[in-house]
Amino acid sequence: MPQSRKIIIDTDPGQDDAVAILLALGSSELEVVGITAVAGNVPLKLTEKNARKICELAGRPDIKVYAGAIRPLARELVTAEEVHGKTGLNGPQLPEPTMPLQEQYAVDFIVETLMREESGTITLCPLGPLTNIALALIREPRIAPRIKEIVLMGGGFFEGGNVTPAAEFNIYVDPQAADLVFKSGIPIVMMPLDVTHKALTTARRTKAFRELGTRVGTATAQMLEFFERFDEEKYGTDGGPLHDPCVIAYLIKPELFKGRRCSVSVETASELTMGMTVIDWWGVTKREKNAMVMRDIDHDAFFGLLLERLGRL
Amino acid sequence: MPQSRKIIIDTDPGQDDAVAILLALGSSELEVVGITAVAGNVPLKLTEKNARKICELAGRPDIKVYAGAIRPLARELVTAEEVHGKTGLNGPQLPEPTMPLQEQYAVDFIVETLMREESGTITLCPLGPLTNIALALIREPRIAPRIKEIVLMGGGFFEGGNVTPAAEFNIYVDPQAADLVFKSGIPIVMMPLDVTHKALTTARRTKAFRELGTRVGTATAQMLEFFERFDEEKYGTDGGPLHDPCVIAYLIKPELFKGRRCSVSVETASELTMGMTVIDWWGVTKREKNAMVMRDIDHDAFFGLLLERLGRL
Amino acid sequence: MPQSRKIIIDTDPGQDDAVAILLALGSSELEVVGITAVAGNVPLKLTEKNARKICELAGRPDIKVYAGAIRPLARELVTAEEVHGKTGLNGPQLPEPTMPLQEQYAVDFIVETLMREESGTITLCPLGPLTNIALALIREPRIAPRIKEIVLMGGGFFEGGNVTPAAEFNIYVDPQAADLVFKSGIPIVMMPLDVTHKALTTARRTKAFRELGTRVGTATAQMLEFFERFDEEKYGTDGGPLHDPCVIAYLIKPELFKGRRCSVSVETASELTMGMTVIDWWGVTKREKNAMVMRDIDHDAFFGLLLERLGRL
Amino acid sequence: MPQSRKIIIDTDPGQDDAVAILLALGSSELEVVGITAVAGNVPLKLTEKNARKICELAGRPDIKVYAGAIRPLARELVTAEEVHGKTGLNGPQLPEPTMPLQEQYAVDFIVETLMREESGTITLCPLGPLTNIALALIREPRIAPRIKEIVLMGGGFFEGGNVTPAAEFNIYVDPQAADLVFKSGIPIVMMPLDVTHKALTTARRTKAFRELGTRVGTATAQMLEFFERFDEEKYGTDGGPLHDPCVIAYLIKPELFKGRRCSVSVETASELTMGMTVIDWWGVTKREKNAMVMRDIDHDAFFGLLLERLGRL
Repeated sequence: MPQSRKIIIDTDPGQDDAVAILLALGSSELEVVGITAVAGNVPLKLTEKNARKICELAGRPDIKVYAGAIRPLARELVTAEEVHGKTGLNGPQLPEPTMPLQEQYAVDFIVETLMREESGTITLCPLGPLTNIALALIREPRIAPRIKEIVLMGGGFFEGGNVTPAAEFNIYVDPQAADLVFKSGIPIVMMPLDVTHKALTTARRTKAFRELGTRVGTATAQMLEFFERFDEEKYGTDGGPLHDPCVIAYLIKPELFKGRRCSVSVETASELTMGMTVIDWWGVTKREKNAMVMRDIDHDAFFGLLLERLGRL
Repeated sequence: MPQSRKIIIDTDPGQDDAVAILLALGSSELEVVGITAVAGNVPLKLTEKNARKICELAGRPDIKVYAGAIRPLARELVTAEEVHGKTGLNGPQLPEPTMPLQEQYAVDFIVETLMREESGTITLCPLGPLTNIALALIREPRIAPRIKEIVLMGGGFFEGGNVTPAAEFNIYVDPQAADLVFKSGIPIVMMPLDVTHKALTTARRTKAFRELGTRVGTATAQMLEFFERFDEEKYGTDGGPLHDPCVIAYLIKPELFKGRRCSVSVETASELTMGMTVIDWWGVTKREKNAMVMRDIDHDAFFGLLLERLGRL
Repeated sequence: MPQSRKIIIDTDPGQDDAVAILLALGSSELEVVGITAVAGNVPLKLTEKNARKICELAGRPDIKVYAGAIRPLARELVTAEEVHGKTGLNGPQLPEPTMPLQEQYAVDFIVETLMREESGTITLCPLGPLTNIALALIREPRIAPRIKEIVLMGGGFFEGGNVTPAAEFNIYVDPQAADLVFKSGIPIVMMPLDVTHKALTTARRTKAFRELGTRVGTATAQMLEFFERFDEEKYGTDGGPLHDPCVIAYLIKPELFKGRRCSVSVETASELTMGMTVIDWWGVTKREKNAMVMRDIDHDAFFGLLLERLGRL
Repeated sequence: MPQSRKIIIDTDPGQDDAVAILLALGSSELEVVGITAVAGNVPLKLTEKNARKICELAGRPDIKVYAGAIRPLARELVTAEEVHGKTGLNGPQLPEPTMPLQEQYAVDFIVETLMREESGTITLCPLGPLTNIALALIREPRIAPRIKEIVLMGGGFFEGGNVTPAAEFNIYVDPQAADLVFKSGIPIVMMPLDVTHKALTTARRTKAFRELGTRVGTATAQMLEFFERFDEEKYGTDGGPLHDPCVIAYLIKPELFKGRRCSVSVETASELTMGMTVIDWWGVTKREKNAMVMRDIDHDAFFGLLLERLGRL
């Protein structure tokens, strides 16, 4: 058996973050070195607690969870309770976590881990605003060449945005952080709305989670039912997009995704388009290709993978 | 028979502008009160000449053609010879026009016509940068409520841009003019790339024009063959998008198009997204719905209409 | 006697514009080829009428006055009645003018004059927003090398702005027009607030105008008394700054002014600093030196000149 | 004797930073709780070392010096070796420091100190880019109401900028950090170029430091001689401006300074004016008055104070 891949999940759960964490914990190909929470979908106090709730749901109270940035680099925090509910994990009734929050600041944990572990072995998986990652790069720029890869959920181009017409939530909340990360030279794989909007939960898929008959399956079904109602109402679709699990699925089965290396630039100057990720898909500029941008997904295989791995927990 | 609708075509031919003009001149539902040329695809000297060439090709040397803005309001002129060829009408060998250019400045013609004709009877059909229209509104703001409607080709959102990743050519060339027009309160119907990229010429369609066996049919086929090669190479499609004729087709058969009333805002502050039309398709902002934005087209019926009307010339 | 210098005064009177016009009409060194009105301190309808009132006050109903732009290129019109009063010329009771407004559009007059007169003989003297000048350059870019010089009142740097902390009124009202003019390559002499704030009317100086004992002297004293109250209250100075007459005084006695050739750039991207003229006085950038920027004035000699010349009317 | 005031000096020495540190260490009114270094005039590796050199020069190897931010929040680091020389402290030959650099991250030190000490007792004295302060506020927003006051050197308005025509170096290097600090609601006293350019070293003053006949006096004279040559050449003045010591002098003798409570906004959107501090000195906006902005200094008394206090070391 090959060695498992070491990842740090940086997250602001969020129901889809939760499913992403469950997918990672259910997959032996991945070793979750730590989970770092960031303010985003809901405030930090809730995201770090939600991360612990999910670890306990997965039967993994041993996972180290760290709290990071309370607010973005340069703008006021914007949250998304209208999507995720007041707690960020509305849907199931999960017990208060008993596993401890680590004392170390998430940013310091990221820096220390990258400086300590062998260079090129740690993958960062940001599922929320990129504040923690940016703060780590500001704190210690020497981590940049030591990061194996950043596989992130964020941005959108051909689908437009979600929080504003042009901007996706994660990037919009901290565009300065995103700008810094996309300019860092670190290898980036990006899961924008253009691909995640093709990973729709549907009644049939939610039902399949429920029919797992496990605590994890039931809680997942309850989370998805709560989460999907927002996008169903907005877009008139059957089901909502499972954004964040795309990141983890890519690490396990990259062949599920199709994309293209492109230049990606983050708008930080204009309020109208603030936080937009301008993707030069057609190569009309000479800007450097700084990210692998995914646009297609084998969504049936993706949900098959999710079902199988969550079934293991 | 109902009275024909009076239109002013504001244009920077361009092969697709040319087809739009031919469509208008072949359609008795429309009365072309004048054609106003603007700098865009190629410099003004060529666009006004090209407009006259097309009128003569259509056997209509009586149409009044006016020259307008040599340059945009606030930025240097950008042209698109890589798409349209050096003359803007590369493809057919059209003779130098013998019909005269009108002496009046296009902007003055637009203002005078609108102030003279009955209010609410004149429709403006901009097929290029919106400089002439903006200059007319600056020259005489009282024309705004007298315009029946502006039906324009420009912008793009879910398709991205063409001249830059985020901006479509017509809007990018003069974003300040576009901003002024979209904020003017005048009823606007917008044909963005989102719809025009669904109106692809194809080998079969080009052949049909050629088989008309007329001068107009042959010249149209030659123009399309030249024009489509750019987008074929870029996008790998069969054929290029017939942008501008969508505007005229809408005036004749609005039922060919489907869209939605939305807020449209033009980016004028940031170079990265300069000239982007931010379309709030999903209504996530409270911004006023200032345009009917088209996104779907019955392209078979559209090409049927084109073929029939160009066949009349 | 040397030939007089031909000037076009572009203006939005405004009491200080009025004094500038009087100074020009009282000075045989200058030939006022025409006065073009623009919207600025008050709307166009008032500025063109005020220009005629002043010509009649000077006994010069033969001067040709033209109406130009009703609004700026890209922004809503902002006016300054709090400074100039409701009419723009509050203070004296001047009769309604009986001399006619020219029918020609001011922008067309500027273009025609420059294309007709010998190249390099016409000086433009903008005393308000630069809309008319920009529109002329958009209308006919070939006028640029035919303009002898643009001597303008506008901007400010070391004094800050007046309408906002960073922007002077004339530039703020139409920053896009100003940007176009400052990038045009035309020789520019700039009278910013940095110099005009050193040309303060004082009780003694106003009294001197009154003691001329002429209609012009009395009206000037009345205008200054109204005008100066705004700046006296704001800055706590004795008297207000006589901005616009600096432009005309420079044409007659350039030796009254001291300045430096600098790069001047106009802010058009950010609302916070919109319309600011960034003057690279100390040469810290490599930007091209596009204007002679005045910063010092022999104010006693300046008022002496004003008194003498207005005394001739 | 009254209790001394506890301060943290945040600094990027720099010769004028060095004099400020010496002034603080020579003044019993102040208790230097710690010195935090930041990248600015020269890279962090040099600024932290320079801070230690100065402490040792002052005979105070007991002072705790911490290293903070290596780079600004959102932009590439810009340094100023052309002003300060390659080491940042060119001029005297100071020995390599033997006192240790503290292991704790400066940002953590700031946060911990503020959370530990009695609320309202710690004053922050930033003499460089505001990166460390911003990072502390991002790390732990609850420190904001616990800070007694921020007295900082930075910005400029009526004097313009120094690194660009509109921006002062400290703010320009990290405008996002400055924006965050000025919007934080913390009481701020600002020493902009408008006041520091009135605190000129002169040959006579430099000589007085030399004549102290002490190591500190000699080194100070050598630093000033190196430092002042840049501004002497640029501005043609006798001596350069002693920026940073104004901050410390204010804490000892606030009566040396005169200013006004104003609204101060930091430009972060436009490259042309990036990092400019827009000071609404005349109250033309309704923006909140968020800083006491100094504009005048009793420079003789200021140099008297410097001489006396440095003489104590």
